[in-house]
Amino acid sequence: MSELIIWTLDWVPEGPRGFVRDMRLRWACEEAGLPYAIRTVAFEDRATNHLARQPFGQVPFLNDGDVKLFESGACLIHLARKSDRLMPRDPVGEANTLQWTIAALNSIEMASVPWSLFKFFGDTGDTWGPKFFDGWVNTRLTHMEPVLAKGEWLVGSFSIADILMTDALRLVDRFDGLADYPACRAYVAHATARPAFEKAYADQMAHFAAAD
Amino acid sequence: MSELIIWTLDWVPEGPRGFVRDMRLRWACEEAGLPYAIRTVAFEDRATNHLARQPFGQVPFLNDGDVKLFESGACLIHLARKSDRLMPRDPVGEANTLQWTIAALNSIEMASVPWSLFKFFGDTGDTWGPKFFDGWVNTRLTHMEPVLAKGEWLVGSFSIADILMTDALRLVDRFDGLADYPACRAYVAHATARPAFEKAYADQMAHFAAAD
Repeated sequence: MSELIIWTLDWVPEGPRGFVRDMRLRWACEEAGLPYAIRTVAFEDRATNHLARQPFGQVPFLNDGDVKLFESGACLIHLARKSDRLMPRDPVGEANTLQWTIAALNSIEMASVPWSLFKFFGDTGDTWGPKFFDGWVNTRLTHMEPVLAKGEWLVGSFSIADILMTDALRLVDRFDGLADYPACRAYVAHATARPAFEKAYADQMAHFAAAD
Repeated sequence: MSELIIWTLDWVPEGPRGFVRDMRLRWACEEAGLPYAIRTVAFEDRATNHLARQPFGQVPFLNDGDVKLFESGACLIHLARKSDRLMPRDPVGEANTLQWTIAALNSIEMASVPWSLFKFFGDTGDTWGPKFFDGWVNTRLTHMEPVLAKGEWLVGSFSIADILMTDALRLVDRFDGLADYPACRAYVAHATARPAFEKAYADQMAHFAAAD
């Protein structure tokens, strides 16, 4: 088996630590028991120093022998084919995983990432944008609440959909956006209590701290 | 082979016609020569009338026998497994398709959809938001420009990644955001000149017009 290599930055400031998206890949590999190595590109000049490998200058990206991917969501779908601990093997379970994986990336994050930017930048002087994106995020969370209240994981067993949904909701929680959504909050707490998350999180924190 | 059923709304106002996301599924099926039927949920009460089938109250969603999916991106990945006209069959080609598929959904649309909302709502009184999202979209397009200038399609042959990337960029073009990006513009023009796009587009326009 070829060695999995997860690429991330060599260092980031304290703010994004624990949230850099190599977390998603680390977490998936830890869940599945897939061995992997970490390699880095430099934080300095990150916008241009690895465009040949990641055309937007982002991290993470993944090597799996001849297969090289960027986009955390794509890397997770690729990894999911390697282990039934990341995705059920039957067609219905696989389809359910796929739909919730994309829902996290294109229905939740579509609203929650712009929302988080308004939260992050604080008082920008804008009034329409903060209100609009607040409304959008709350509509999404209102829809997620009964889904997450129903069962433990999105597709029956734990899957990459839970990794992505948790990571999307974790960012909302960081800016206290889950206060009115107890099922969303309980889901995030439950998912982040998994040993694989804890290991991935501690490893990412240690990785960036080592470069201080 | 079970019949594919693409679900969309029974009617929408003129504004979104040609852009409702069942376009993506129609287009993919037309490219692959996969037969499909169209079924609808009512525009009226759409926020609540099909939550059992699509938890965010959105369209489209897809039936493929026992397999039922929502999220256009997930439906396209599902359909891509049925035809090499939608995704190369080798592991490297598949990974490339996957990464560009997710890039369209989570790197381009993450910036371009909020940007388009500011364009759509016009003068909201905000100044920071329009400028911030304009900068973000332009950074993304600046990165896409050399990629799209290089070759015809994202992964060598036409794939679902091109359907999603074209659809994402088509929305930017609608609000004249591609003016400074000739390769992006040429790519959209080239993709939307494909007979499968033209058929899907004409069918969607006729579908909504028939309900006027």
